Amino acid sequence: MAPKLAAEFIGTLWLTLGGCGSAVLAAAFPEVGIGLLGVSFAFGLTVLTMAYAIGHVSGCHLNPAVTLGLVAAGRFPGSQAIPYIFVQVLGAIAAAGILWAIATGKPGFEVGGFAANGFGEHSPGKYSMNAALLTEVVMTFFFLVIILGATHPQAPKGFAPIAIGLGLTLIHLISIPVTNTSVNPARSTGPALVVGGWALQQLWLFWVAPILGAVLAGVASRTLWPDDRQ
Amino acid sequence: MAPKLAAEFIGTLWLTLGGCGSAVLAAAFPEVGIGLLGVSFAFGLTVLTMAYAIGHVSGCHLNPAVTLGLVAAGRFPGSQAIPYIFVQVLGAIAAAGILWAIATGKPGFEVGGFAANGFGEHSPGKYSMNAALLTEVVMTFFFLVIILGATHPQAPKGFAPIAIGLGLTLIHLISIPVTNTSVNPARSTGPALVVGGWALQQLWLFWVAPILGAVLAGVASRTLWPDDRQ
Amino acid sequence: MAPKLAAEFIGTLWLTLGGCGSAVLAAAFPEVGIGLLGVSFAFGLTVLTMAYAIGHVSGCHLNPAVTLGLVAAGRFPGSQAIPYIFVQVLGAIAAAGILWAIATGKPGFEVGGFAANGFGEHSPGKYSMNAALLTEVVMTFFFLVIILGATHPQAPKGFAPIAIGLGLTLIHLISIPVTNTSVNPARSTGPALVVGGWALQQLWLFWVAPILGAVLAGVASRTLWPDDRQ
Amino acid sequence: MAPKLAAEFIGTLWLTLGGCGSAVLAAAFPEVGIGLLGVSFAFGLTVLTMAYAIGHVSGCHLNPAVTLGLVAAGRFPGSQAIPYIFVQVLGAIAAAGILWAIATGKPGFEVGGFAANGFGEHSPGKYSMNAALLTEVVMTFFFLVIILGATHPQAPKGFAPIAIGLGLTLIHLISIPVTNTSVNPARSTGPALVVGGWALQQLWLFWVAPILGAVLAGVASRTLWPDDRQ
Repeated sequence: MAPKLAAEFIGTLWLTLGGCGSAVLAAAFPEVGIGLLGVSFAFGLTVLTMAYAIGHVSGCHLNPAVTLGLVAAGRFPGSQAIPYIFVQVLGAIAAAGILWAIATGKPGFEVGGFAANGFGEHSPGKYSMNAALLTEVVMTFFFLVIILGATHPQAPKGFAPIAIGLGLTLIHLISIPVTNTSVNPARSTGPALVVGGWALQQLWLFWVAPILGAVLAGVASRTLWPDDRQ
Repeated sequence: MAPKLAAEFIGTLWLTLGGCGSAVLAAAFPEVGIGLLGVSFAFGLTVLTMAYAIGHVSGCHLNPAVTLGLVAAGRFPGSQAIPYIFVQVLGAIAAAGILWAIATGKPGFEVGGFAANGFGEHSPGKYSMNAALLTEVVMTFFFLVIILGATHPQAPKGFAPIAIGLGLTLIHLISIPVTNTSVNPARSTGPALVVGGWALQQLWLFWVAPILGAVLAGVASRTLWPDDRQ
Repeated sequence: MAPKLAAEFIGTLWLTLGGCGSAVLAAAFPEVGIGLLGVSFAFGLTVLTMAYAIGHVSGCHLNPAVTLGLVAAGRFPGSQAIPYIFVQVLGAIAAAGILWAIATGKPGFEVGGFAANGFGEHSPGKYSMNAALLTEVVMTFFFLVIILGATHPQAPKGFAPIAIGLGLTLIHLISIPVTNTSVNPARSTGPALVVGGWALQQLWLFWVAPILGAVLAGVASRTLWPDDRQ
Repeated sequence: MAPKLAAEFIGTLWLTLGGCGSAVLAAAFPEVGIGLLGVSFAFGLTVLTMAYAIGHVSGCHLNPAVTLGLVAAGRFPGSQAIPYIFVQVLGAIAAAGILWAIATGKPGFEVGGFAANGFGEHSPGKYSMNAALLTEVVMTFFFLVIILGATHPQAPKGFAPIAIGLGLTLIHLISIPVTNTSVNPARSTGPALVVGGWALQQLWLFWVAPILGAVLAGVASRTLWPDDRQ
């Protein structure tokens, strides 16, 4: 179990550091910044790279919603969910700390949104709470559809990290303007602790909606992709 | 048959929600918007992700032109074409509804083009109807060449979703300025129902041209890539 | 032989239509244009998609320099080089014609550079003839290193189209400002016939330099990657 | 040994020419430049392409930090490290020379930063020396985690070049604003020799920090991914 938890800690650290780091450090760099397109690739590539690096160790969840969606689908033992989620959140918090240490190395840096997730006036595009809820539920539902389908025994072997990683890229291409895109309660928690205030007050949505979407997909998959399908 | 139709419904919903959603919500976001490049990746990644997730269930057509092109090529039973096309269109309509619910969560949102396809004064670059027809026929022809070739028994196993998904990205990189890129009658129908008016009047072209291009490719492939080639 | 020549014709048509089409139609679209990054992906994805679709038919050269580099490396029979090159050039000319038909569907369209290759005052960044020569030789040399290495019997199976296609993307990311990037005499010939004048006068360089670079790589590879290496 | 050293020379030449070349020639091209996103893809694709082309010859390190990290992990014989590192540095210097020959073919070219790495006032975003140190150590640590994990016997076969190449893209998406991104002492040395002055004075950090991060990852991996894990 220890190697698995170490892998989930390192992996979620990388997801949060890479995704939020690209947003905070590089998205709006003058003239040549990477924009939301670059941030979308960054988030997706954290998962693609880690899925090849540690998928064979821990399954590479890096996300409490993914862990619980896999439990709902009958693909992961419920008894291991709590330790997995615990180290995922720890990894995301460590990432926020490292990113803070780097970002403050720039003269005049102000913490600002620090890639935290939000809705209403804290949504990048000022989308309402209901739009944020719907977006996070639907996006996480499809994230789990991709994960459960691409790792199904009848799917091509070895390609799941590409499908899942680029699936996360796609989800960001759609939804950063709405909520800054979470679909991952751990990734939301790290930056929220640095920002405090509104980010902590709105954090509940980024636990509730992703987990709801993931569990719905897990339940649906038992019908669509039973492992014994012929 | 039910799992196949459920898969085609979910997959076409994702294609339309992801592709059109990225266009409506994120393409022109101030300063850091994803642009036509990001929209092109989004459309392609909807297909790449679903092809790994549900390709083993339904074949992952997600597109009436693809279904009919495969029938023309002798790769899919004609008797299943109508139910496939029916649920594909339903999925695209559901996607347009979800996208509408999210997009209207932004204060001051106006529906505008809503990623509908068009020609003449409704072409993004004001291209004529003839240019639009030619573009959609040629682009769908090559889309089917890629699909039929990459899924041929002699092609490398497991890579078809990458070729097909990134093929759709490529098609968008070329042709969004001409027609907003359809090559998929279902994807065109969803947003057209939201926009109404001109979008419905021009919808015929985005059924006729993609299907024509796809069937031409299907017929051509029987010569170029017979399954029993040595 | 007929299916091989048909495949090379179709594939080179797609390479030229997709790559030059993205440049002419979409690169500088107002506000949301795909830029040189999008054009680079488009060129690379034409090769990636066709390599999966027709690689098993013709080897998917799509490029006289590639064909001659493979001959130099002892990987392709010299007797087939002339017919391959002939249909490649035909395919590129057909592509330029189709692109011209689409592009002129826009009111006020002016042919301009039409994605032709050039140097000196016709280089996008005004690079000299010597810089253009060096660039095209070096870029094509490395293109062939990638092709010969990734298709070597000891390389992983099935991945060569990804390496080769994205290798062409990379080459464009580096060198569009210098020559608009050729590394492919057929791709250069199609647009040059539409543009005429300077484009035809400078066309010699985009036959000489790519072929020189490719043949050098072919010869070098006989030392570096002999097929019987242990 | 000679083919291995030739491969490492050619590969590191390509990494430095492709990555730094895209930055110098294309990143800030007026209107349609590729930006930091394009440069990030260029660096990553040099590694992806070479890993497929020469991975089966030399292992495709292209980077003294990677070579030493693999030694620390017990995956590469220490006795070969010095010749590997020597030709890697030679390759990077050759690349800087070729790039200089191309870049000076543009009238009015000024050498400027020439994609050299720096900190403090020579950091693209003016990040401090401590931020640069932390960034390079952490980024190289994760680069080696990806390399060691994706090439582990239990990881999917053939995909490591994708994970490693796109991992380098990701690292650039995060950290170009901080140090211009090194994680590779050879890549840093080539341009520094052209720029001279401050670039040579700050070069020490881009040897010390990447090697430190890589060796830490190598040591950690012996615990996390022992080859005999069940």
